[in-house]
Parts: sequence; structure tokens; C-alpha cells
Amino acid sequence: MENKIIIVTGIPGVGKSRVINDAMNLTKNKYIIKTFGTEMFNIAKKESLVKTRDDMRKLNNETQKTIQVLAAKNISKASEISNIILDTHSTIETPNGYLPGLPIDILTHLIPKTIVIIESDEKDIIKRRQNDSNRKRDNDSIIAIKRHQELNRSFCAAYSMFTDAILTIITNKEDKSIETAKKLAKILD
Amino acid sequence: MENKIIIVTGIPGVGKSRVINDAMNLTKNKYIIKTFGTEMFNIAKKESLVKTRDDMRKLNNETQKTIQVLAAKNISKASEISNIILDTHSTIETPNGYLPGLPIDILTHLIPKTIVIIESDEKDIIKRRQNDSNRKRDNDSIIAIKRHQELNRSFCAAYSMFTDAILTIITNKEDKSIETAKKLAKILD
Amino acid sequence: MENKIIIVTGIPGVGKSRVINDAMNLTKNKYIIKTFGTEMFNIAKKESLVKTRDDMRKLNNETQKTIQVLAAKNISKASEISNIILDTHSTIETPNGYLPGLPIDILTHLIPKTIVIIESDEKDIIKRRQNDSNRKRDNDSIIAIKRHQELNRSFCAAYSMFTDAILTIITNKEDKSIETAKKLAKILD
Repeated sequence: MENKIIIVTGIPGVGKSRVINDAMNLTKNKYIIKTFGTEMFNIAKKESLVKTRDDMRKLNNETQKTIQVLAAKNISKASEISNIILDTHSTIETPNGYLPGLPIDILTHLIPKTIVIIESDEKDIIKRRQNDSNRKRDNDSIIAIKRHQELNRSFCAAYSMFTDAILTIITNKEDKSIETAKKLAKILD
Repeated sequence: MENKIIIVTGIPGVGKSRVINDAMNLTKNKYIIKTFGTEMFNIAKKESLVKTRDDMRKLNNETQKTIQVLAAKNISKASEISNIILDTHSTIETPNGYLPGLPIDILTHLIPKTIVIIESDEKDIIKRRQNDSNRKRDNDSIIAIKRHQELNRSFCAAYSMFTDAILTIITNKEDKSIETAKKLAKILD
Repeated sequence: MENKIIIVTGIPGVGKSRVINDAMNLTKNKYIIKTFGTEMFNIAKKESLVKTRDDMRKLNNETQKTIQVLAAKNISKASEISNIILDTHSTIETPNGYLPGLPIDILTHLIPKTIVIIESDEKDIIKRRQNDSNRKRDNDSIIAIKRHQELNRSFCAAYSMFTDAILTIITNKEDKSIETAKKLAKILD
């Protein structure tokens, strides 16, 4: 039996981390959670390119892309000894637009079995974001969130075409986080 | 003149088979209809891997993908001697999510001239599915059908980007099947 | 510092040309505007394949694709000496369906930093098209325009996946063209 890479995506405020943690306790299989951003930070820190998470944004484009590919390779390597849940973003919203989270250079190294999109109602996302004091809120209108979630489906369709991964959409309803985790656990089984 | 491969997709219940058959009688060109699932079954049967259509689902993932690529190669070969209508799915809805019907490994062998999506009103699809006794109905809500049709557009956009195929969307209206067939026939001409 | 290719797309009637011209005057960087269609025409004319713009449509499919790739290579070459704004279409609406404007053969030569989609309200698009006497109006219903703009987002998501380009969507509101140009200028800076 080969190990699986399951990519779990969702925009900030869908409640992704909690759902992933709950699903880990519900599935009968063993998984290691890898967070793409953390993997990248660890590489950059080890290479003495950054000290803090915030420094990551100051790296030039090319360095960032090199680190991104190294992170993908590390995760792929980790999948040789364990099933992996890869916690990441389909796209990252920046002031200049949507940055693809899984461009072709990354997907070439990371062939997932399944790509999961966790979605929520726009109003629930806004509520969760308002309760998250770490987050600056610049683009939290219902229209902007709806657009971001719709676009992510399109990006994930392209990722799925390229990797032959199954695309799964799970709706995380307010106060039903455990139901969502059960659905994710079924994918992990 | 080179032969054409026209891929015709549409979710169960859009009335695809009937439209294809009617269009075949209306176009001035000659086509052979290939159904991707049937091509795969014929290969698996010949290799003594299965006896019935139902056995196909029991094949492991890797075997299924090998057969899928062989089917694509056969269809590509068939297109050397005739125009082909390839009757298949943009995505297949499974309990674990949407499986891409035309991932990159398949499209590499099958360069279509046009990818057609036949769509219908969600209510019409539900009605047609209810009249189809062969089908188990597990996910036939208007919302689920709407989502599936929307997702298929995204997948087909990615397929079109990768193959440079024209993407055509045709709406099959209730009791207007012959109008739809005429539109498809125009694509086949 | 490397030069940038910024691809700017938008369906006929969104007011793209005016926005691009205004943005050119607002950005602090220097850009050359290349229009994909014009690049193709210049190549075909130089090779004595066509005399007028209208002749382009009469070229066979294979010749058109060869010219398309040559145009992409020229634009890529031009980007060695200047930043480029590439004015083109995500998809081209034809009587047979949507033709991808940036298929993989083109994107292989043209790696953009950013892909911009300029969108407008469907009603504003219809109004602008009605004032454009050069244009024949065959498919200008609100539904058709909405569908075209939605599809273009899906195509651009696939283009972005393949090139790692940032995807930016800018809405051009009626009588707010200069605001749109300011947003585009920010991308060009």
C-alpha cells in the first residue's frame, strides 16, 4: 500500500484547521499534517534567509519560488514514510491579485490522491474572521469572499486535471464543524 | 483533410445519448461514436481482468489508469481512419468527490478539435433521472446538479487550455432535443 | 531587474483599450503595448499570407496556430528589452464556441507575471457594444455575456496554474474608467 497525499484547501475563515484536527482523530488511518507555509518557513530559516515568519514576504519572487519547490520536494519525500495531509491554499489573496497556491512546478512534485476544498457560507466566514484578532481585514465583503471561493473551484479544477486527483468540496456549516470533520475523515479513510 | 475528434460531455440526465444519435443523422460528415467507458471495458475484458461492467469498479486504481490510457490510445488510433465522437464525462461524481474524466495523461493522447458540454436545466435533469430506472439516485438535489454543471465548465476550460480545443456549451431544453441535435450537428459539420 | 509581461484580457465592450492607455500614463514604469491580433497580422502580412485583417480568418487552422506561436515568440523576445502589456483575449467567442486565447503552446513561450481580467456589468457591455459601429452583434444577451465572463475566469485560472502568474480581476464601472486605470497602473508599477 502506497501512502496518500491529501491536499486540504480553504480560504481564511472557513474553519479549516479545526476540521483537519478533528478529522485526524476520526479517521482509521495515520496521517502527518504538513502546512505548506510552515514548510517553506522552515527551509528559509535553515538557510538563514529569514528570522521570522514576517520576513518571508520580503524575500524576492525568485527566492520564494525556489523555496516553494524545495518545500514540495520535502513533502513528497515525507509521503514515502507516511500519509500526508497538506494544509494549504488554492490561491492566496494579495493586494495585487490571486496567487496560485499549487502552480504546475509544485504539482509536478506533489501528486495528491485528493484535493479537498472546505467552503463556508460567506457570512460565517466574515464572522470567523472578525473573531480572529491576528488577521487584518481588508477585503471581507460578501461579494469578495464569494468571488474568492468561486475562483478557487476553478483553480482546483485545473489542479485536478493536471494531477488526476479527485476533487472534493465540503461545506463547513456554522456549528456543524464535527459533521464536516466526519466528511473529511471519510476521505482520509 | 485530417479526421476530427469531437468530445461530447454532459452529466447523467442531460439527454446526451439521444442528442448525439440525432446529430449523427443530421451532419453531412461521417463519424464513429466511441464511448470512453465501453472502450475501457472492452480492453479489460480482452485482458481477462473483468467479466461484467460492474467488475470495472473493483479494479485497483493503478490498473484503471493503465486501461484509461490504453483506451485513449485506441481512440486516437481509430481517429486515423475516421472522424470520432467521443462520448464521455468531464468529471465523474463519486462518493469521494469529482473524478476528472479527461486528466492530462488522457488528453496527451487525445487531442480533440472541440469539447462540447451539453447542459440542461436542473429540474429537467432530475425528471430525466427519475425516469431512468437503471440509475441509483443519491445526489439529485438542484444545488448538487447546479454545482456539478458549473464545475464541469471549469474542468473543460482547463482541458481546452491544455489541448487548444474549442469549448462549446449547448443547452438541451426540455422537448427541444432535436434543436440541440441541430446545434451539435453544426459542430460536427 | 527583469522585464515583466502583463497580460490584460477582457471581452469586447469592457472598455479595455481605454483603460490600458490611461494606465500607461499613470504607471511609473515604461511599457510597450502589444496586441496579440496585430502581432499575428503583421507576421502573416510579412509572409505574404494575407493582405487585410479580414484575410486572417481565411487562413487554415494549422497556419493560424503556427502564426500564433510565432507571435508569442516575438512578444517574448520583445520582453527582453522592455516591459510588455499584452492586450489579448482569454477566449474568443466564435460561432462554434469559445476558442482559448492562451493555450499551452502560447503560454510556454509567454510567461506572464500577472494575468489581468477587466470585467464590466453586462448591461454596460451591451451599451458599449451598441455604440461600436465596427462590431456585428450576434450574441449580446445578458445571459451570454455573463456566461462568457464567468468562463473566462475559469480559463484564466488554468492559465495562472500553468504559468504561476498572479490573477487579477478588475471591474470597470460605468463612468469610472479612470478608477479602473488607476487599479491597473498599480499592477504595472
